[in-house]
Amino acid sequence: MEKADALIIGGGPAGVITALTAKRTYPDKNIVLVRNVEKGVIPCGIPYIFYRLDKVEQDILSDTGLEKNKIPILIKTVTNIDRNNKTVFFSDNTSMGYDRLVLAIGSTPVIPPIPGLDLKNVFFVKKDLEYLKQMRQQVYKSKKIVIIGGGFIGVEFAEELSHIEGLEISLVELLPHCLEAAFDEEFAIAAEEELIKRGVKLHTGVKVERLEGEGKVEKIILSNGHVIDADMAIVSIGARPNTGLAVKAGLSIGRGGGIWVDEYLRTSDPAIFAVGDCAEKRDFFTRRHTPVMLASTAVAEARIAGANLWGLKLIRENRGTIATFSTRIGDLALGAAGLTEEEAKREGFEIVATVAEAPNRHPGVLPGAKKTKVKLIFSKHSGILLGGQVLGGEDAGEIINIIALAIQKQLTATELDTLQIATHPLLTSAPTVYQITTAAGQALSQISAI
Amino acid sequence: MEKADALIIGGGPAGVITALTAKRTYPDKNIVLVRNVEKGVIPCGIPYIFYRLDKVEQDILSDTGLEKNKIPILIKTVTNIDRNNKTVFFSDNTSMGYDRLVLAIGSTPVIPPIPGLDLKNVFFVKKDLEYLKQMRQQVYKSKKIVIIGGGFIGVEFAEELSHIEGLEISLVELLPHCLEAAFDEEFAIAAEEELIKRGVKLHTGVKVERLEGEGKVEKIILSNGHVIDADMAIVSIGARPNTGLAVKAGLSIGRGGGIWVDEYLRTSDPAIFAVGDCAEKRDFFTRRHTPVMLASTAVAEARIAGANLWGLKLIRENRGTIATFSTRIGDLALGAAGLTEEEAKREGFEIVATVAEAPNRHPGVLPGAKKTKVKLIFSKHSGILLGGQVLGGEDAGEIINIIALAIQKQLTATELDTLQIATHPLLTSAPTVYQITTAAGQALSQISAI
Repeated sequence: MEKADALIIGGGPAGVITALTAKRTYPDKNIVLVRNVEKGVIPCGIPYIFYRLDKVEQDILSDTGLEKNKIPILIKTVTNIDRNNKTVFFSDNTSMGYDRLVLAIGSTPVIPPIPGLDLKNVFFVKKDLEYLKQMRQQVYKSKKIVIIGGGFIGVEFAEELSHIEGLEISLVELLPHCLEAAFDEEFAIAAEEELIKRGVKLHTGVKVERLEGEGKVEKIILSNGHVIDADMAIVSIGARPNTGLAVKAGLSIGRGGGIWVDEYLRTSDPAIFAVGDCAEKRDFFTRRHTPVMLASTAVAEARIAGANLWGLKLIRENRGTIATFSTRIGDLALGAAGLTEEEAKREGFEIVATVAEAPNRHPGVLPGAKKTKVKLIFSKHSGILLGGQVLGGEDAGEIINIIALAIQKQLTATELDTLQIATHPLLTSAPTVYQITTAAGQALSQISAI
Repeated sequence: MEKADALIIGGGPAGVITALTAKRTYPDKNIVLVRNVEKGVIPCGIPYIFYRLDKVEQDILSDTGLEKNKIPILIKTVTNIDRNNKTVFFSDNTSMGYDRLVLAIGSTPVIPPIPGLDLKNVFFVKKDLEYLKQMRQQVYKSKKIVIIGGGFIGVEFAEELSHIEGLEISLVELLPHCLEAAFDEEFAIAAEEELIKRGVKLHTGVKVERLEGEGKVEKIILSNGHVIDADMAIVSIGARPNTGLAVKAGLSIGRGGGIWVDEYLRTSDPAIFAVGDCAEKRDFFTRRHTPVMLASTAVAEARIAGANLWGLKLIRENRGTIATFSTRIGDLALGAAGLTEEEAKREGFEIVATVAEAPNRHPGVLPGAKKTKVKLIFSKHSGILLGGQVLGGEDAGEIINIIALAIQKQLTATELDTLQIATHPLLTSAPTVYQITTAAGQALSQISAI
């Protein structure tokens, strides 16, 4: 039987980064990655395989990093873990020993209890190359597509598909607004307006009762009696952690349904780590379980796990997820990090929320200038930044990372107000109205510490 | 005699932000701003008045903020400060009393000892609307323009003027490379290549001996014997702090030539503050005097001074300038913060420098993707970030602010390696190759602490 010093199960970003980090930290160790597909896909690129990319294959996760670092890739399906003998069994009846095992086995789309989801031309968002190819083909055969679920994946699908001429796109969301888990109302509404501008028909605050059709989907029946014609449906209402292997192996499962892990991503068996979507997530501020499944979290976990496989080397700085992410709808870019105003209040925080808006060029008459808006949420008594949201030009994608860093280092409004920030007429807003410093400054007079 | 609770001298960004911050912090105080020009200009917008803006007036610094906050603007020239009687005298023989005085009196272009600078059609970079209007007119009358000095202002002038058809632009820089004060060689060379691509003729590592001409400039004679024909010259070799008023009033001048200030921007007279270009600057890491004159520094100082006029309220977090700035040459955006590799070595730091490059979209085949490169410089033993540089797409303008924040909060490579970062196919590089985390990760194995 072959033996790996570290065997990593899963070829998504979490698995790959764990492998690369492990190799960098322990160059003499034998690191092996096993995945159950010939080629992995870039998860966040999936919405863009329909129009912006010419074919699904352009969204394949490159193996270059693994190859350059001489990390062998096994294409096998793991069926069982024998923890006593530190051995993993594969579906082809072979096995492999390990000294350290990493579960990076991802998540599976949630299938809601809606009748009719078994009809033909109903698709889920699976990270599976062949399945996605069929999905792409079906898109180009369709005239009317209904997307069920208005979280960021549903919204990104709707936006992408809206670029395809002659296609009618409807989106159904149970909550009053799309993207409500990540954004406060004003930001969610701005996103919805972009979708509407792009011709997407929004149905919010309404449930899908059932899907109907003769063999294949033809109608989506909503709880308000509304009926949407469809020749394709895409269900994107979330995902749940893959825990089957872990349960079979007797590992502890966390209260949130993911594989239980400590601060260093160690499971209840100290020789086994779990990272990414399959591992339980906790909120940065409250340590509550949270169903966040984002590359930002997964990759940060992978770097901690990979470096700490043998002896703790990297002290975990970021306790829990700040759920930071960004997206783009038409010409509007949006980002969020930490708690929204609504979430913060719900959790019991006394808060100060401020908003600053300015053109992202200065003077604002310069060609290409767009208005970029930043909202910051501070703890009223400590002045510490709890969360932030941004919308505007493409640079919102990096502005949210300034906010994300500030949250992770628990900066206060005072520190943000007096931050030295690079500004340039052709690249950013003016130094006098830079959104983050301005919003922080506005908060100061309402923060008790001042 | 009228009296202001706080009188702010200077209408540039430092003065305006001091006034606005003071009003926000002390809403009941009577804050007055005095400047010697009817309208101020946006300093960093000056290079863009020739092509991207249709006229110089589009670069006027807006008074909206001051007006909204009911801060009176006096158009007067200050001639003298009587500290004993806390009174400022104006050139029209009027005067005004103050309880707190803020000097935000800026800088003046350095006039090097080069013969021929008094010829007609030789211009300096002055923040003066009428002067800039003449300069713009002269640009459109010229065929051959020589820029003397390849710091960021000279480079920005050269780039902007290269957009005007039929104009021949030459740039002369004494040092081996343009932008050498801010960037390491590889980044400076990338900037130079963009300039060359835009048709700018570069003369680096060479001195201007003299300017010649019959009344007006006609030839620039270089130290290597080379002669450049010119019908206009623009001199941009730096600026020196305006200290005349302070010297006359007997305030201390710092070793670097600026008005001496403490951590809270208080001068040697505790009732008088100085902010921005006129105040002495020190380096964040070494506390040495540094001739940095940037809006990023000036505005951060203004926020500290404005809040601390009566009693220290904001603790100064950022001790000294990290000289963060960004610029754009053609399609290439560049940013820098903290120490360069060369500077760090010169100062005596033992360092680890790493570079990470990746497309700023993922997959990299997505339309609009550009390669963005990040260089990070860490202290070898502590692992603390000393500096960073970025070049690539427009988002470099905000990526440098992530680095700037990390420097100001003294993050280590460990912290940066495990940072949670939002990534999106249409907005950023992939989470697996995000440049800041990747460069930090590469540094880890070379840092002694690991």
